[in-house]
Amino acid sequence: MKRKKFILPEEQMPTAWYNLLADMPNHPRPYLNPKTRQPITEADLQVILADELARQELTTECYVEIPEEVQEIYRIWRPAPLVRAVGLEKALDTPAKIFFKNEGVSPVGSHKPNSAVPQAYYNHKQGVRRLTTETGAGQWGSALSFAGHHFGLDVEVFMVRVSYDQKPYRRLMMNTWGAACHPSPTNLTPSGRAARMADPHTPGSLGLAISEAVERALEDPEGTRYCLGSVMNHVLLHQTITGEEAILQMQMADAEPDVVIGCIGGGSNFGGIAFPFLRQNFCEGKKMRIVAVEPESCPKLTRGVFQYDIGDFSGYTPLIPMYTLGHEFQPSAIHAGGLRYHGAGAIISQLLQDGAIEAQAVPQTETMRAGVLFAQTEGIIPAPESTHAIAVAIREALRAKIEGREKTILFNLSGHGTIDLYAYEQYLGGHLQDFVPTDEEIARTVQMLDKII
Amino acid sequence: MKRKKFILPEEQMPTAWYNLLADMPNHPRPYLNPKTRQPITEADLQVILADELARQELTTECYVEIPEEVQEIYRIWRPAPLVRAVGLEKALDTPAKIFFKNEGVSPVGSHKPNSAVPQAYYNHKQGVRRLTTETGAGQWGSALSFAGHHFGLDVEVFMVRVSYDQKPYRRLMMNTWGAACHPSPTNLTPSGRAARMADPHTPGSLGLAISEAVERALEDPEGTRYCLGSVMNHVLLHQTITGEEAILQMQMADAEPDVVIGCIGGGSNFGGIAFPFLRQNFCEGKKMRIVAVEPESCPKLTRGVFQYDIGDFSGYTPLIPMYTLGHEFQPSAIHAGGLRYHGAGAIISQLLQDGAIEAQAVPQTETMRAGVLFAQTEGIIPAPESTHAIAVAIREALRAKIEGREKTILFNLSGHGTIDLYAYEQYLGGHLQDFVPTDEEIARTVQMLDKII
Repeated sequence: MKRKKFILPEEQMPTAWYNLLADMPNHPRPYLNPKTRQPITEADLQVILADELARQELTTECYVEIPEEVQEIYRIWRPAPLVRAVGLEKALDTPAKIFFKNEGVSPVGSHKPNSAVPQAYYNHKQGVRRLTTETGAGQWGSALSFAGHHFGLDVEVFMVRVSYDQKPYRRLMMNTWGAACHPSPTNLTPSGRAARMADPHTPGSLGLAISEAVERALEDPEGTRYCLGSVMNHVLLHQTITGEEAILQMQMADAEPDVVIGCIGGGSNFGGIAFPFLRQNFCEGKKMRIVAVEPESCPKLTRGVFQYDIGDFSGYTPLIPMYTLGHEFQPSAIHAGGLRYHGAGAIISQLLQDGAIEAQAVPQTETMRAGVLFAQTEGIIPAPESTHAIAVAIREALRAKIEGREKTILFNLSGHGTIDLYAYEQYLGGHLQDFVPTDEEIARTVQMLDKII
Repeated sequence: MKRKKFILPEEQMPTAWYNLLADMPNHPRPYLNPKTRQPITEADLQVILADELARQELTTECYVEIPEEVQEIYRIWRPAPLVRAVGLEKALDTPAKIFFKNEGVSPVGSHKPNSAVPQAYYNHKQGVRRLTTETGAGQWGSALSFAGHHFGLDVEVFMVRVSYDQKPYRRLMMNTWGAACHPSPTNLTPSGRAARMADPHTPGSLGLAISEAVERALEDPEGTRYCLGSVMNHVLLHQTITGEEAILQMQMADAEPDVVIGCIGGGSNFGGIAFPFLRQNFCEGKKMRIVAVEPESCPKLTRGVFQYDIGDFSGYTPLIPMYTLGHEFQPSAIHAGGLRYHGAGAIISQLLQDGAIEAQAVPQTETMRAGVLFAQTEGIIPAPESTHAIAVAIREALRAKIEGREKTILFNLSGHGTIDLYAYEQYLGGHLQDFVPTDEEIARTVQMLDKII
């Protein structure tokens, strides 16, 4: 019997998040206060974030304990399975072993609750009664709605209007978990009113939705705080539960990855799987390749500039040292809404600068094809974001095939695509079969990889 | 630490399906050939079903081994978790322990692949190249698409037109797994053409879609066979993997159910959890209550007649001895599309007749409210079908509370409701919170239960 899934017992679920800042050779430069241009302080952050989250944003301690109340909710779906992609391996006829961490098993369908749950918990513990946030594709907004309800918090989500109209299922999930969801821009905030005044039919943007959510939180300093789902250190910290579990599960599988792959928007999914393996590179002298995968149409890591930039439209976030396409960059409307962010988190940007990680940009036709092949061989229909990681896993597996070498590949499946099926319809057209690459295509892929790696 | 999930290791996954016919005291009367009115033979069934499935339909052997090729695909998601619903228990403030078997973890999102995979396998083994089937809400059609692709079979699904139009995501899932899906009635079959001639705007029906799928299979006796997803013995046989796993997992939890609950359309979800526990009642003298839950608007078990009836519209299926509302019964358009079938399988009908199981009918307002409470306390948004089982689990838990008694409840969560969210929208309206029953409501529930149990 070939074992398919490697499931960690609940009692072995890691009880601390890992902070890569403790071990990385070069720290990122500090966040700057956008007004004073001075390094930001915990007090600056506490204006919009819960105190403990502001503390975690700046801490350099190696591990942060996961509160028991958070572990209890994690156990609804965690530990998440590590899966051997035997069906995909067979279809590719590759000597490589392909593993993936399935973060799509959460009630929300993605990795986002890994940070939403602790964010809701710390806010609740501090006496906050209401959370505001923004959401693009809707994954993060759903996750905070789910998490907030568990701690009796009201949750108000500003969802980019174009997504609100296109993705009604995401809004309905938020409502089912008791949250309110507004199409942004709204008339509820100064930034929203200004945007609607300028263009009554504006589709909205993530940067604008962030500004609205922050303004809304600032209205009520006593009872309301803002939350965000990626980019910042404390978010990536919470996501490391993924990589911590994966390390234990790869041991169960008696395997060690040669390459670890994650898709990247702001960095929460990539950082979650990558940071614990990077600890092994930094502290135990291992030499795993760590690859961040971005869409060709939003190429902050492969074609962006490394500089200070803000995270939102109106400048409420700190200035962050990051690879960025500029905070006014307008990516095209690709299916992977979660990867359409202009910049990458500070730690990830520094890692790329230092050569500790690689980046690859993949065109949408390649990622969607990879997604269909994965769905047909592994059953799970992947989220459009996750198809980016799958595409690079396939590139690596085909390379192993051409070179006739064994190789162990691990990628992070950020979520399932059950409510992103229109992306598949647009890609598939009438073409229902034959997503396995031809020999000629394999040769071309490997040639291309030889150039970029 | 309170353990949340009870996960069976893959190597302990049951390797045989259980056949209740071997142990039940009174066998159902035989199926009849609708033309001759004589008991049906294996040869009669082989005209539309794969030979091995025709054999399994009539066998009385106690266990049927699960082929290794089927086990391999099962392992994509099986063993499915048994979960302790601690969040729901807390919200209900009940002394009862509530467990559920989560069948929503399959790639399709429901229990349906438990039978789709072996059906595709046996057809493939026999040299069949194409499968036809019908689907109402789309769960079964998705499952057969997923399963068929694994064995290189073409799959053609006739989806009731009104569902086809209302549930585009289900069709898109089928396409993503490589299957063709037609809105039924089509122009491809005699039954379809006749229905369209009679009414060009007909919304279609499940009975009609079955007739189309059967006619389509009969066109090509060499290469095509028909498959169906519920009602018949071989389908329920395959579903017993659920109950077999649940027995082992309840042992892991050091608990034994006082009551086992499943929702019922044709019987595949209910039979899957119930039959192995009924073996314990019949063979080991246990006295667990086994409850089938149906919608008040499709009350075949509580208000139907026990008689011979056919399974489709045009009379291609055998005459089956069953509790039925008549094969021309038109249920109202409730959210739980999977429970809108006019009859229950022969074994289940006989069990009810013999008093070995109970039946409860639940109104939609109660099931949807139960669904929202479950989503808010356990995270998982349940399928509208599954909310029926949840509603009765809640009834039982509230009864235990009023009586101040301990009780162990187990129900089968047939699937998640991620792509049924419009049902929640229609139910929720603007009302986003407070789904926990009041004291007055609890008293009323218990009074009502005292009357019906």
